[in-house]
Amino acid sequence: MTSLSAANREALKKTSTATLTTVLFKRGLRNVFIQGIFLLNGNAPRMVGEAYTLRYIPAREDLDTLGAFEGRGHPQREAIEACPSGQVLVMDARRDASAATGGDILMARLHVRGVAGIVTDGGLRDSYTIDKMPWPAYCASRSAPLNLVRHHAVDSQLPIGCGGVPVYPGDIMVGDPEGVVVIPAKIANEVAEEAASQTIFEDWVEDQVKKGRGIFGLYPPNPETRAEFEAWKKKR
Amino acid sequence: MTSLSAANREALKKTSTATLTTVLFKRGLRNVFIQGIFLLNGNAPRMVGEAYTLRYIPAREDLDTLGAFEGRGHPQREAIEACPSGQVLVMDARRDASAATGGDILMARLHVRGVAGIVTDGGLRDSYTIDKMPWPAYCASRSAPLNLVRHHAVDSQLPIGCGGVPVYPGDIMVGDPEGVVVIPAKIANEVAEEAASQTIFEDWVEDQVKKGRGIFGLYPPNPETRAEFEAWKKKR
Amino acid sequence: MTSLSAANREALKKTSTATLTTVLFKRGLRNVFIQGIFLLNGNAPRMVGEAYTLRYIPAREDLDTLGAFEGRGHPQREAIEACPSGQVLVMDARRDASAATGGDILMARLHVRGVAGIVTDGGLRDSYTIDKMPWPAYCASRSAPLNLVRHHAVDSQLPIGCGGVPVYPGDIMVGDPEGVVVIPAKIANEVAEEAASQTIFEDWVEDQVKKGRGIFGLYPPNPETRAEFEAWKKKR
Amino acid sequence: MTSLSAANREALKKTSTATLTTVLFKRGLRNVFIQGIFLLNGNAPRMVGEAYTLRYIPAREDLDTLGAFEGRGHPQREAIEACPSGQVLVMDARRDASAATGGDILMARLHVRGVAGIVTDGGLRDSYTIDKMPWPAYCASRSAPLNLVRHHAVDSQLPIGCGGVPVYPGDIMVGDPEGVVVIPAKIANEVAEEAASQTIFEDWVEDQVKKGRGIFGLYPPNPETRAEFEAWKKKR
Amino acid sequence: MTSLSAANREALKKTSTATLTTVLFKRGLRNVFIQGIFLLNGNAPRMVGEAYTLRYIPAREDLDTLGAFEGRGHPQREAIEACPSGQVLVMDARRDASAATGGDILMARLHVRGVAGIVTDGGLRDSYTIDKMPWPAYCASRSAPLNLVRHHAVDSQLPIGCGGVPVYPGDIMVGDPEGVVVIPAKIANEVAEEAASQTIFEDWVEDQVKKGRGIFGLYPPNPETRAEFEAWKKKR
Amino acid sequence: MTSLSAANREALKKTSTATLTTVLFKRGLRNVFIQGIFLLNGNAPRMVGEAYTLRYIPAREDLDTLGAFEGRGHPQREAIEACPSGQVLVMDARRDASAATGGDILMARLHVRGVAGIVTDGGLRDSYTIDKMPWPAYCASRSAPLNLVRHHAVDSQLPIGCGGVPVYPGDIMVGDPEGVVVIPAKIANEVAEEAASQTIFEDWVEDQVKKGRGIFGLYPPNPETRAEFEAWKKKR
Repeated sequence: MTSLSAANREALKKTSTATLTTVLFKRGLRNVFIQGIFLLNGNAPRMVGEAYTLRYIPAREDLDTLGAFEGRGHPQREAIEACPSGQVLVMDARRDASAATGGDILMARLHVRGVAGIVTDGGLRDSYTIDKMPWPAYCASRSAPLNLVRHHAVDSQLPIGCGGVPVYPGDIMVGDPEGVVVIPAKIANEVAEEAASQTIFEDWVEDQVKKGRGIFGLYPPNPETRAEFEAWKKKR
Repeated sequence: MTSLSAANREALKKTSTATLTTVLFKRGLRNVFIQGIFLLNGNAPRMVGEAYTLRYIPAREDLDTLGAFEGRGHPQREAIEACPSGQVLVMDARRDASAATGGDILMARLHVRGVAGIVTDGGLRDSYTIDKMPWPAYCASRSAPLNLVRHHAVDSQLPIGCGGVPVYPGDIMVGDPEGVVVIPAKIANEVAEEAASQTIFEDWVEDQVKKGRGIFGLYPPNPETRAEFEAWKKKR
Repeated sequence: MTSLSAANREALKKTSTATLTTVLFKRGLRNVFIQGIFLLNGNAPRMVGEAYTLRYIPAREDLDTLGAFEGRGHPQREAIEACPSGQVLVMDARRDASAATGGDILMARLHVRGVAGIVTDGGLRDSYTIDKMPWPAYCASRSAPLNLVRHHAVDSQLPIGCGGVPVYPGDIMVGDPEGVVVIPAKIANEVAEEAASQTIFEDWVEDQVKKGRGIFGLYPPNPETRAEFEAWKKKR
Repeated sequence: MTSLSAANREALKKTSTATLTTVLFKRGLRNVFIQGIFLLNGNAPRMVGEAYTLRYIPAREDLDTLGAFEGRGHPQREAIEACPSGQVLVMDARRDASAATGGDILMARLHVRGVAGIVTDGGLRDSYTIDKMPWPAYCASRSAPLNLVRHHAVDSQLPIGCGGVPVYPGDIMVGDPEGVVVIPAKIANEVAEEAASQTIFEDWVEDQVKKGRGIFGLYPPNPETRAEFEAWKKKR
Repeated sequence: MTSLSAANREALKKTSTATLTTVLFKRGLRNVFIQGIFLLNGNAPRMVGEAYTLRYIPAREDLDTLGAFEGRGHPQREAIEACPSGQVLVMDARRDASAATGGDILMARLHVRGVAGIVTDGGLRDSYTIDKMPWPAYCASRSAPLNLVRHHAVDSQLPIGCGGVPVYPGDIMVGDPEGVVVIPAKIANEVAEEAASQTIFEDWVEDQVKKGRGIFGLYPPNPETRAEFEAWKKKR
Repeated sequence: MTSLSAANREALKKTSTATLTTVLFKRGLRNVFIQGIFLLNGNAPRMVGEAYTLRYIPAREDLDTLGAFEGRGHPQREAIEACPSGQVLVMDARRDASAATGGDILMARLHVRGVAGIVTDGGLRDSYTIDKMPWPAYCASRSAPLNLVRHHAVDSQLPIGCGGVPVYPGDIMVGDPEGVVVIPAKIANEVAEEAASQTIFEDWVEDQVKKGRGIFGLYPPNPETRAEFEAWKKKR
């Protein structure tokens, strides 16, 4: 697995998820945007980090009692302490947000530990406290019920689905206020570079449009526009 | 029916719906959080009050005309004037939010009358006016169409379903910015007391976590942590 | 087609979508509020304008490549440049918001061109940039994926469905922070006038309610209330 | 309430639900076909009878135990014994078919008692046994779980919603292999008569079409076709 | 547009929709199977024919009255008479099956006219009569309500979506008891030929499996198996 | 893990899934019936066997190509050959039935190998061929598209969710024409015994009801009825 360079990690923090979907589409990847989730704190910093996965299956009443959390060994609590700093905890809750997959205490612990963010296709509880953390938390719903009502944490660091998208451990998760894109680990560096370049172009286009220019020949650019942009880029 | 003490009513205003779901789970109640609704005014005061129920069935074109509202006797208008001060008006709209179950004029009347809040699994109209009321209104959608398009108010103070949860008249409705929990009337006092106690513990835990402590042995607490907390609680 | 008078266009900017649904209900129209969309920028000005329609069908991999946008002739890009100033671009995306139907560059172009707003039952991308535009954009989801992943723009200015509501080119689209109502072109003037009148009455009612008056006989008004209101209206 | 004549009761057994929706549409009623249900035994006799209603709300674990069925007083068991012969038991299960609202023993009892059929927007269990009963049972799903898992029977003979349609006690329920239509009691006789007449016409039209005649001028008929049909009707 | 050869038209009648999805997948087409529909008469002959499209938008009460069907000019009735013999009538009903898009009289007319079948993502009424026609009719639901309740036929022979799949006029529609696949017109002949060839192989594989052979090296075949199959094919 | 006795395995073949949900409900298990699936061949023998699990995640275009099936090592193909005779292959397809999780060749192989049945919450392809196999196959839809379009088989014999229900390897899967119940392995013998006993009682009750007896005091039985039944049971 190629690891993401520090420069590209920073570059991805300035790239939109929209631009990333285009760059990934060029490589034949159409299903990269996690569906049905939103960012709790709209002012959180951008999220970039490797996926550390946690999988839930449906709860069973005799197994999923409050006692399940006691001692070590509960996969959710283990994942909270094991997810490395700089990575993103990604939870597969089968897109069922009728109960939580975590709350403010666990989120605070992840934040303190330097984890880059959390993405779950289930709910988060104590969400209005999490709203105030300067930290990116994505979930499918504000959902008070404890996870035991619906979810059973079962294992970590296996490939999962999250919001309809495949997530393999180590994939690069990028989040902006619109949502989260998953970049396969092996192409993360090239995608980051192309996206950074595309972002400069799109910022220039937006500027042109605000000055009154029409979109034909501009977006996408014809050869003349492409040349004009390249000239501008050299000069700046 | 045991009535909720004044002290416990105040205590519940400081308790989160998340904590309440845990306390109710210990008593075998798993389905207590109303699904699919949200709070219109995020800065509204906390909501605590007895459920006063109103039931809608699907509208029928020959019965649900504008004339239906005239005079006394329309169940929705009756409920607006009948719901006692301090209680919560809870509406069963069959989780259909494609039309409203009330608007700003009716909400203003409820507010003036001292009703503690409204919860509907249908829509509310004039929602951006209601957003500005210092009063908790929970609904499933901002929905402009008048109720007659879809809903027929039929009766009051019967047991209903709201957002998938059973609500009996007199049950205690507790709302925070995350949503609304329903506490069966007969256990409301004991639940309030346990939740208040649990809240003190969880606040202490969150403080510990922010100071860098790990969650194993802390949350849930092992005997040493439990002792440490009890000592802290005595001292404060 | 009767065209909307300038006075009525202004009047509709002060009318709520809730009131409009009532006025249209009196004319037998029950399905006029576009379902499942929301306003990105809650502080945008009110939206009033004729519908200019664009239709999408599902994408097909061999047709919907990045090359499709090149040159003139792509229906989405054509519509962005063709929708007249003062009109509203309305998109039928089959209520599928898993991909975008436009992004910030195209929205900026519409804004610069004087288009009155956009309504789509698909997604919009770069939504947090659009959030900051002083311009009404309604969509079903913040959705980063480019439209080619799911949508194929096929034609303009045909009757469409949008959020479950029929929209004919030239119908009057009215948007407030709650959502969007569609007024058939031929009755737009009379609806605007009746709604303006109804708004004055409802504002007066709300004022009465805030002063403590009950709703029986007031809303809807009995003959005495009606007379009282008419007297008040003359005096003001 | 006008009661349905014996002749019209028989006539309705020969009328399709499709034709009935057209006759009711002429009277302004658009929402009369119960959505999301199907007939278990496709060879069951046609169903015609007055609605006898039963309402479920969501279950609550402390109330909905096996003991709830003991003795008299459980509303579901009461309804099974109380629904009059010739009437139809109609259940409002909030369109939740993840659990049953009855099984083969209760259906056998209804059948023995002469009840005309059952309609539920929840599930039925032991459905493959009910398949073999010469008796019309409509449900939303084959669903093994006992009702206590999800449903709490609460009261009878109130107006309800079933499959999105309003049902008032005494309304006439008509079922064919396509589904079930609800006819408001007060217009049942006139609807039955018009539908019988319309059925004769449509059978004649179908016969004409099978002989190769085109639909223009035939369906709907122009004056010449209407005259031709009337002449044919007199002669037969 | 390459037209489908008579031989390939016959070949497609012996090909399964499952095999066709594989052949189309090899060409990069993943979304070719119409979702959410079923075949009414399970014993109907296989369906193969060019798509003749009809589009519905949501109904509007003032336009969609019974009078709409009178005279010529109603797009649904026009399409019934205009769809050429040997082609398939494909309807876009926005996947809304709460009302019908046709009934037994119209289906009988299509059958008499030699139309190859019908595919709609809305409902069909009089479905139990259509069940008995020796003719393939695919729909999303048995649905008694007349189309005017929900649907407005608007135009023909434009590209549409049906069950989430793009359908262009002239595309080849192939139906078996599992459902319907859409083959883009320009590749229909090559797809038919490859599918016929693949079918021979899969039938041979199934025979091998029934004789007890394992699937490794057989399905998909390794070089030895491929050679064995080719030898068998020559000999038969 | 207690293994299921041969006698209890046979007994479960005569027990309905409805009865099993009641027996499991008495042990506090409410979520045991797999939702949203149906039996393809209604005349298949009853299914009883240990769960052998296979898990799918969403497909990714660069990984899920036709080449993926080649050689050994593809988890789906491995599972087809590895699932022991007498066990049931249970697939977690995230309740997404828009593509298949298997087809007739693989089902034939399972059947030949003596596997007791298949349960998937995704689709099955070639379903009308599987309909004719004397073997129980449960799926969520007849779905022609090959699995690669949507699903990526990832691992076997881990705990999974199927149709919303937790399934652990070795749990006992019981299927009748209504659907499938999951019995936790450790209580399978006691559940089988209680269910067999309950079945005798319910058959007797049904017989009593057919003779005209009312349900009060019979179902559930009062002490007199219980005694009467016990006497009958001894005599038979």
